[in-house]
Amino acid sequence: MINLMNDYNSPGHPAILKAVTGAANEKFPGYGTDGVCREAKDKIKALLKAGDRAEVHFLVGGTQANVTAIGAFLRPHEAVIAPDNAHINVHETGAIEASGHKILLAQANADNGPAGMGKLTADGIRAICLSHTDEHMVKPRLVYISQSTELGGVYTLSELKGLRRVCDEYGLLLYLDGARLSAALASRRNDAQLPDIASLCDAFYIGGTKNGLLFGEALVIMNESLKSDFRFLQKQRGGLLAKGFLLGLQFDALFTDGLFFDIAGHACKMADKLRSGLEGLGCGFFVNSATNQLFPIFPNHVIKKLAGGFLFEKWAAVDGSRSAIRFVTSWNTTNGEIDELLAKCALYMAD
Amino acid sequence: MINLMNDYNSPGHPAILKAVTGAANEKFPGYGTDGVCREAKDKIKALLKAGDRAEVHFLVGGTQANVTAIGAFLRPHEAVIAPDNAHINVHETGAIEASGHKILLAQANADNGPAGMGKLTADGIRAICLSHTDEHMVKPRLVYISQSTELGGVYTLSELKGLRRVCDEYGLLLYLDGARLSAALASRRNDAQLPDIASLCDAFYIGGTKNGLLFGEALVIMNESLKSDFRFLQKQRGGLLAKGFLLGLQFDALFTDGLFFDIAGHACKMADKLRSGLEGLGCGFFVNSATNQLFPIFPNHVIKKLAGGFLFEKWAAVDGSRSAIRFVTSWNTTNGEIDELLAKCALYMAD
Amino acid sequence: MINLMNDYNSPGHPAILKAVTGAANEKFPGYGTDGVCREAKDKIKALLKAGDRAEVHFLVGGTQANVTAIGAFLRPHEAVIAPDNAHINVHETGAIEASGHKILLAQANADNGPAGMGKLTADGIRAICLSHTDEHMVKPRLVYISQSTELGGVYTLSELKGLRRVCDEYGLLLYLDGARLSAALASRRNDAQLPDIASLCDAFYIGGTKNGLLFGEALVIMNESLKSDFRFLQKQRGGLLAKGFLLGLQFDALFTDGLFFDIAGHACKMADKLRSGLEGLGCGFFVNSATNQLFPIFPNHVIKKLAGGFLFEKWAAVDGSRSAIRFVTSWNTTNGEIDELLAKCALYMAD
Amino acid sequence: MINLMNDYNSPGHPAILKAVTGAANEKFPGYGTDGVCREAKDKIKALLKAGDRAEVHFLVGGTQANVTAIGAFLRPHEAVIAPDNAHINVHETGAIEASGHKILLAQANADNGPAGMGKLTADGIRAICLSHTDEHMVKPRLVYISQSTELGGVYTLSELKGLRRVCDEYGLLLYLDGARLSAALASRRNDAQLPDIASLCDAFYIGGTKNGLLFGEALVIMNESLKSDFRFLQKQRGGLLAKGFLLGLQFDALFTDGLFFDIAGHACKMADKLRSGLEGLGCGFFVNSATNQLFPIFPNHVIKKLAGGFLFEKWAAVDGSRSAIRFVTSWNTTNGEIDELLAKCALYMAD
Repeated sequence: MINLMNDYNSPGHPAILKAVTGAANEKFPGYGTDGVCREAKDKIKALLKAGDRAEVHFLVGGTQANVTAIGAFLRPHEAVIAPDNAHINVHETGAIEASGHKILLAQANADNGPAGMGKLTADGIRAICLSHTDEHMVKPRLVYISQSTELGGVYTLSELKGLRRVCDEYGLLLYLDGARLSAALASRRNDAQLPDIASLCDAFYIGGTKNGLLFGEALVIMNESLKSDFRFLQKQRGGLLAKGFLLGLQFDALFTDGLFFDIAGHACKMADKLRSGLEGLGCGFFVNSATNQLFPIFPNHVIKKLAGGFLFEKWAAVDGSRSAIRFVTSWNTTNGEIDELLAKCALYMAD
Repeated sequence: MINLMNDYNSPGHPAILKAVTGAANEKFPGYGTDGVCREAKDKIKALLKAGDRAEVHFLVGGTQANVTAIGAFLRPHEAVIAPDNAHINVHETGAIEASGHKILLAQANADNGPAGMGKLTADGIRAICLSHTDEHMVKPRLVYISQSTELGGVYTLSELKGLRRVCDEYGLLLYLDGARLSAALASRRNDAQLPDIASLCDAFYIGGTKNGLLFGEALVIMNESLKSDFRFLQKQRGGLLAKGFLLGLQFDALFTDGLFFDIAGHACKMADKLRSGLEGLGCGFFVNSATNQLFPIFPNHVIKKLAGGFLFEKWAAVDGSRSAIRFVTSWNTTNGEIDELLAKCALYMAD
Repeated sequence: MINLMNDYNSPGHPAILKAVTGAANEKFPGYGTDGVCREAKDKIKALLKAGDRAEVHFLVGGTQANVTAIGAFLRPHEAVIAPDNAHINVHETGAIEASGHKILLAQANADNGPAGMGKLTADGIRAICLSHTDEHMVKPRLVYISQSTELGGVYTLSELKGLRRVCDEYGLLLYLDGARLSAALASRRNDAQLPDIASLCDAFYIGGTKNGLLFGEALVIMNESLKSDFRFLQKQRGGLLAKGFLLGLQFDALFTDGLFFDIAGHACKMADKLRSGLEGLGCGFFVNSATNQLFPIFPNHVIKKLAGGFLFEKWAAVDGSRSAIRFVTSWNTTNGEIDELLAKCALYMAD
Repeated sequence: MINLMNDYNSPGHPAILKAVTGAANEKFPGYGTDGVCREAKDKIKALLKAGDRAEVHFLVGGTQANVTAIGAFLRPHEAVIAPDNAHINVHETGAIEASGHKILLAQANADNGPAGMGKLTADGIRAICLSHTDEHMVKPRLVYISQSTELGGVYTLSELKGLRRVCDEYGLLLYLDGARLSAALASRRNDAQLPDIASLCDAFYIGGTKNGLLFGEALVIMNESLKSDFRFLQKQRGGLLAKGFLLGLQFDALFTDGLFFDIAGHACKMADKLRSGLEGLGCGFFVNSATNQLFPIFPNHVIKKLAGGFLFEKWAAVDGSRSAIRFVTSWNTTNGEIDELLAKCALYMAD
């Protein structure tokens, strides 16, 4: 079976594994207070061109990063604004609400083209703020976006600047969930670089789990007022790894010699190859994504046959006879796998 | 100024005040352990025809009743299903989320006629249940409705039975917010009586604050599995009044000689008189409500003039020149006040 | 039966009841936005000699006041320092922890004389601060004291200044639970007046429930940094009373013509009379209190006989044959009741 | 520098690293739904001799395991009983309270011999239960112990049975924090085996992080009533690792060919060697521990010299001139390191 189910289906990129096993005989201080963590953080700060304005914390996973950060930033009556497809709204078992905060669902751009794909708009945010007027309602305080989005969308630099403006207008924090930030950066459609993200967001995280690491997310806090005592919150939520140096070792390797970009670049290249091939076969798409996630539409009988040799996720029924499925490429997706998938698609679609 | 702003704008019905002041020289045990509370609860149980299957607790206010009950009934990963206009969703400052639970917004019937007015439907509930399939999502567990609804709608007995069926189908609790239950019961459109409510709901509360009391809501728990240790939860949330006998005195009076129904009956009668009069003037309505809340539509210049002599709430703009406003009648609304309001409406609409 | 069980056993002082019933025919805006609340707050500010530096909020009960205030003031990792007999530690069903905050128990002065009675000491606070050194532990942030204490103790002005100094030294907030602040102010042992309390505490509340009101506590926030958005928190916790004007009417009456001090003064006078009488009978005391709570020690057979005609709380066994009980006096305790109690004590002790 | 600071100072045991890297080219389903996790869980169940009565969940770290389990098991008003030195009480930044639950501190056995070392006693638990009598107080519901304890103590089988009895008597759950369970099992003083633990506890976890794993704790739930929906809670707290198979791979290796016991056995053997050597030098101990943690007492000038070549934790001042320090041995502690340490101790103590 060729596995295109997701981008976290194998232990990790060889260079990452090597970084961990290479330190097998070393001993380190605990809880991320070691020198390797410091060096890895310095590499990230350098990439962000942010110097010490950026405060970096390593966490194990995405849900943990989101709930720890958002829970640390908000007072009890303050709420999050997010699009309804947001990972925190649908796929984190109510972790944000469990930490006490309401998620207000803003109208997102439902268009399936590059401008849409569930991206939040300044108007959607503004509408939420205008309708929350007194102490009988929660107080909107933080805007949550993901880059790339759940549907593989990419916010352009101009769109991000628009979000920043509406945040400034209403006193909102801008938080970016970067579980797949690397894929967005590697997208041919992207024009917002890491220093842009750092200058526009109050906080964001750079995902590692979906970009070659065993595990790990690097949270970056840019807004000075959000920094104090973060490690207390991290510990309280169970997110301060005893062997924090494992995160340091991995992120240090990830940000050495451009590995971070190479991994995502390969994944996007494989996705582009797959997309071109499918377009050549006359295949349509659920959304026009340009990252490592593709959502092609096939007749159901084709999907059934594909399932015999490939692992992928069923996404949504399009009509009575056709459905969208999701292919996710990764650092370990090969040209040969894509070729074989395309060959099988051609074969089954011709039936 | 004639005040039709809401139904909690004066201390309380004379009989309620008398019940409190009449006990001025008595002494009672604390925290609702007194005999008057017991008697008042017995009167409620008798009305519900439920005997000791009903467990009654007195709380001070509606938000407190909702959050204490729902927080007591749910485990951390369990969620509430509610219509988007639900009081707990909009007007309680995220109290449910602050207690850790997500509110899932079900499609409500948006029709403005009796079937609609924001009422939840079995299909809306079913759709939520079908889309929550695994541990990455919250688990729907409790359906929240209000009777009467925020827009003065009244669930019929048949509709309530339909909700009960879908709750049974998916293992859901049915909770009814009865802040204005008395107005629903007094509505000419109502066919669900208190014993019906008790037999169909797992828990509900009978509102006192909006029906003549100084303050007070009577929570009724019918489902045996939800009863244990409720007073612990009530105390923990700050909802166990030291002078609990004040609640007993008031509810005892409210459920003596039919006062509960008289108060709501008068309020609905005044609303019906107002509605008939406005219809006679050719006035349209935002929704076709039949309780003590009316939502007439007027030209904006009429609204401006009315505001000179009457207190009411501006509800929603209908178009560029017309808006809906809300009139709420109460035990203290007089025939004379309605006559004067209708006269002024006739005058201003003729301008 | 003569009731000396507690100071919240009857509806309220006649002047308070009159204030409420006197407004029976008036109509008010909701949620404490009315003019009577404003006037009552102005009277409190004047008494505090604090002007607009004091922000006043009315809440219904003490647990509600404590958890709403402390929950509003702290970030998730911040903890409360309290003596182990603190009401929030023992008698509020874990409300503070339910809002997410740990209570750290500081060594209190266990002496039974005026300096002790469970009062917190600067050294006890300092020890807690010195042992909380990093992010693996909570961060001490707020000192909770009650005036008068659970055992009827009264902090002197000098002691309060000492607590303030240690708070300043370690960056701690000082919060005073004043459920029985009036009894402390009326104590013959007191030398800290309301303006002293206001200048030394970051926040405190002036209890009404135990000083003649139907219900109600007036929270005063002095520290500017703690004021923002408090009404959001109050609403979220279910503590924003719909008929907020009922609190305004009562506090306005309480702070008119010295009623606040008269009520507590009478209660303390009755307690002093009772204490003197008991001392004359050779009775010992569990602690040397000087407020409206007395903790005399009697042989168990005397207690048994007293229970036939008087309501009081059994406090603690002293040895195999003697126990301490608690008598609480109030505005409605009469000279005749004290005389009768003393007569019976004399009689039973002589047996 | 020879590192005896703790037992989580290096990436992991070679066999564990090999298990992870050996699967580098495999692909797995996400979130622990893979076959390797299943096999690892089966091996644990077999060791426990519990069959499917044991439900096993893999979590990343100890704080996460504790707060997820305890938070899943308790209702909001229910409290934890623990000794005051409990890890959850002191060193997890109030995580339990942040999840809403109070920790009640029971009197522990303060003796420094085997029976003591901070171990909880049945009498201590009973006293807590007897003093919590009504709904104004939290309800004790879960007893937390750690095996081995924070001070290296080991509960005997007889002691564990005594705790179970008092738990049954008062309707309490017994939860065992096994961060260092392996060291307890390997202790020469131990007579409670894994099947005993499983039959006596309602839930417990078997620590991996401190016994050779990169990370990972295996939570075992024995009580049927505590099992439902645990994965929801795990996800909600951010504790459901995307690459859950990494936990499966490690635990599978740990429970293959006795590695679990070999690792802990070596650590305890090194500690025993160190203890014997120190005793031979006339060294005293803070407590009489028999696991992989030792707490020798040295003159401060000796400690100062030792710090030049060894990493260890300063534990507590004993008097003006002597202090206790902590040495922790691990799978990677060598005979040579212990020899060198003993030599230096001899040298410095002779000065």
